[in-house]
Amino acid sequence: MDKEEMIALINDGSIDISKLKILLSDMNTVDIAEILAELEKEKIIQIFRILPTAIASDVFAYMDSDYQQLIIEVHTDTEIGEIMNKLFVDDAVDFIEEMPANVVKRVLNNVMPEKRKLINQILQYPEDSAGSIMTTEYVDLREDAKVREAFDTIRATGLNKETIYNCYVIRRDRLLVGVISAKTLLLAKPHELIEDIMDSNLVFAYTHDDREVIADQFKKYNLLAMPVVDKEQRLVGIITVDDIVDVIVEENTEDIEKMAALVPSDETYLKTSVFHHAKNRFLWMLILMLSATITGSIISSFENGLMVLPILMSFIPILMNTGGIAGSQSSTLIVRGMAVGEIGLGDILIILWKELRVGILCGFGLGIVNFLRVFIINKHDWMLCLTVTLSLFCTILMAKTVGGILPILAKRLKIDPAIMSAPLLTTIVDAVSLIIYFSFAKLFFHL
Amino acid sequence: MDKEEMIALINDGSIDISKLKILLSDMNTVDIAEILAELEKEKIIQIFRILPTAIASDVFAYMDSDYQQLIIEVHTDTEIGEIMNKLFVDDAVDFIEEMPANVVKRVLNNVMPEKRKLINQILQYPEDSAGSIMTTEYVDLREDAKVREAFDTIRATGLNKETIYNCYVIRRDRLLVGVISAKTLLLAKPHELIEDIMDSNLVFAYTHDDREVIADQFKKYNLLAMPVVDKEQRLVGIITVDDIVDVIVEENTEDIEKMAALVPSDETYLKTSVFHHAKNRFLWMLILMLSATITGSIISSFENGLMVLPILMSFIPILMNTGGIAGSQSSTLIVRGMAVGEIGLGDILIILWKELRVGILCGFGLGIVNFLRVFIINKHDWMLCLTVTLSLFCTILMAKTVGGILPILAKRLKIDPAIMSAPLLTTIVDAVSLIIYFSFAKLFFHL
Repeated sequence: MDKEEMIALINDGSIDISKLKILLSDMNTVDIAEILAELEKEKIIQIFRILPTAIASDVFAYMDSDYQQLIIEVHTDTEIGEIMNKLFVDDAVDFIEEMPANVVKRVLNNVMPEKRKLINQILQYPEDSAGSIMTTEYVDLREDAKVREAFDTIRATGLNKETIYNCYVIRRDRLLVGVISAKTLLLAKPHELIEDIMDSNLVFAYTHDDREVIADQFKKYNLLAMPVVDKEQRLVGIITVDDIVDVIVEENTEDIEKMAALVPSDETYLKTSVFHHAKNRFLWMLILMLSATITGSIISSFENGLMVLPILMSFIPILMNTGGIAGSQSSTLIVRGMAVGEIGLGDILIILWKELRVGILCGFGLGIVNFLRVFIINKHDWMLCLTVTLSLFCTILMAKTVGGILPILAKRLKIDPAIMSAPLLTTIVDAVSLIIYFSFAKLFFHL
Repeated sequence: MDKEEMIALINDGSIDISKLKILLSDMNTVDIAEILAELEKEKIIQIFRILPTAIASDVFAYMDSDYQQLIIEVHTDTEIGEIMNKLFVDDAVDFIEEMPANVVKRVLNNVMPEKRKLINQILQYPEDSAGSIMTTEYVDLREDAKVREAFDTIRATGLNKETIYNCYVIRRDRLLVGVISAKTLLLAKPHELIEDIMDSNLVFAYTHDDREVIADQFKKYNLLAMPVVDKEQRLVGIITVDDIVDVIVEENTEDIEKMAALVPSDETYLKTSVFHHAKNRFLWMLILMLSATITGSIISSFENGLMVLPILMSFIPILMNTGGIAGSQSSTLIVRGMAVGEIGLGDILIILWKELRVGILCGFGLGIVNFLRVFIINKHDWMLCLTVTLSLFCTILMAKTVGGILPILAKRLKIDPAIMSAPLLTTIVDAVSLIIYFSFAKLFFHL
């Protein structure tokens, strides 16, 4: 039975509860959460109650915060305690961060004290820090333990741990000294010492490290998990790759939004209110509108020339649009190149030289097309052809080089390069292209 | 010693080879590959030769293709065979895909026949398919085996397998029937049967599935690995999360490039030649240049009006730029929302209604600012204020709604929404905003 069928059957009440229970217990918890999201409120509560306890908290972790709140509100304190105690600490934190204060209070009151302490601890780390995305469920082994003892530790504690594929080796004072994979353990002999087979060459993070930097390390070293330590290098948690995948997607969304002159938002499009959408977009629209005044006044200053030769007006959009796209193509490539770590601050001259040549090639190609077009449409007006084509060529050359080096300059000035590209680049390219155009017009037509 | 120091010491030859050997054997292979990339050619070869054989092929896998080729060229056939036989099949395929034909031939001739077959098999899958990113190194267990036997299988075969954290359960005919994590195995009793403890609720891919769809599944189900089957559902390989992280980053880059009116490229910025850069950018620049002719001819058609009231010209950039940014903000949000799976084709009316209201709010806010600005600068010219402000308001409203629904319409027509946003949106917004502007001007000034 596929998801759609199942949702229909549940919604019209034509499925037997005991049969449903069997069907659900065989499904992936992510899919169950997805089905619940499609049901009516009363049905959600009803179905959630029949879920086997072993999977209920897993399903809960995958639900949207609106539905999580709905479920919490209809459950007793004891039931809430049961769900919460089975949740991984990082999932519990994600959930609590989205809840209103009264729900948070009720939830924390019903969690085991030990877990409450861990949750509170993670809640205190700054947003976007390693601490805020870590989990405290991991297996730690003592360096002087034997492989045999390590397996006993894993069996005794492993069931509640988020990942046991990497175990972290600590000293008596909890100082992190190494890592050992389940693979190494499985392939080792029972009497071997952990410190002899562990990998002491560790990639780790501090609790206050930025999550974007950590994501880059995951990418670079192909990690499944990374240990997190406090200032004294004592192990306090781990970050797992599934959370890093989310970080990568979110950071990419943020970069894309910044490049499109939007204030990045943590919420998704549909969940953001109209007012917040307007707020996130208003500032950059305002800046671009005001900066376009510069372009407007350049046109005004050439008013006399345009009155003598009004045909010149009709080429303004071609110059501005072609220049705009030429510049944004270059700046996008550089911003992205810096984001994925390919391009560094030292590459500015390489980029300048490359963009200059790309600009010449593109400018030359488009120049030819433009020349022919103007020549044919405007009845062989050589001077007009020359003015427009030369302006176009210079505009493209200028837009490509400015678009290429502006993001690097921004980064050097510690400004986010993604933010620079849209407003500043547009303003520069528009203004300079018009100045170029009117200068050529003055020269060739003696205006 | 940090990386920079080490590179300096190696380059000026002031470090003892035996000391270097010890230092390197303690480092992460990714870091070693990074150090090699900074050295002179002769040094790269020299250092690579002193690497312990256990890590040499790992370092090789992380090197850039230029350096890989350099190393292959100076090694004997036997040595090449040794490196290749230690490489994971997916890393070997990645490497071979970048090599010129003569190197490929030499490499394949020196690989063990078994491995050569696997490499050739993966090379045949279409680019961007599951088959092309899978590896054939995995642990498969028979459903009728016991946990004890499973551990023996893992110990016997595990060392060369890319991941043993998930073992895949197959029937006698290699039909994939379940998955079992190392965690479950570790926590199970030795005499239990695999089929009793395995998870038969599988997320798997077919060899020809698109890698972007698979990446979405990894995100949705928080997977570490996914089995790949052929048409008959027989297990042929697995995809691991580290390769999926690369896929996500690459697909995001592709989306960003498309939104910036670039033909997406597999190569990085610095590695792409000037000619290819120009080629990837030329087409959309040409299309935008030609489509700007429409805008130009709209201006021409209103030439008489502009001659009577030349001040109108100076507001054209404000309308076009503000409209442009208003539209691209909306389309970017929708394109991204569709890419991360939040927005579907059915949401078109919700989006229309939302963008309409966002447009009213933004248009109203910017309208007020604009009204005041024009009113102050243009000496209380009420009619001019009204013309520009009303045009601005309508332009923003139009740009927001068009920007919001255009990506959805594109998707409905099976066109990539990311590609639509830049050229088509710009053309529509530019043209319509000018028509609005000139209509109001005609109305208020009786031009």
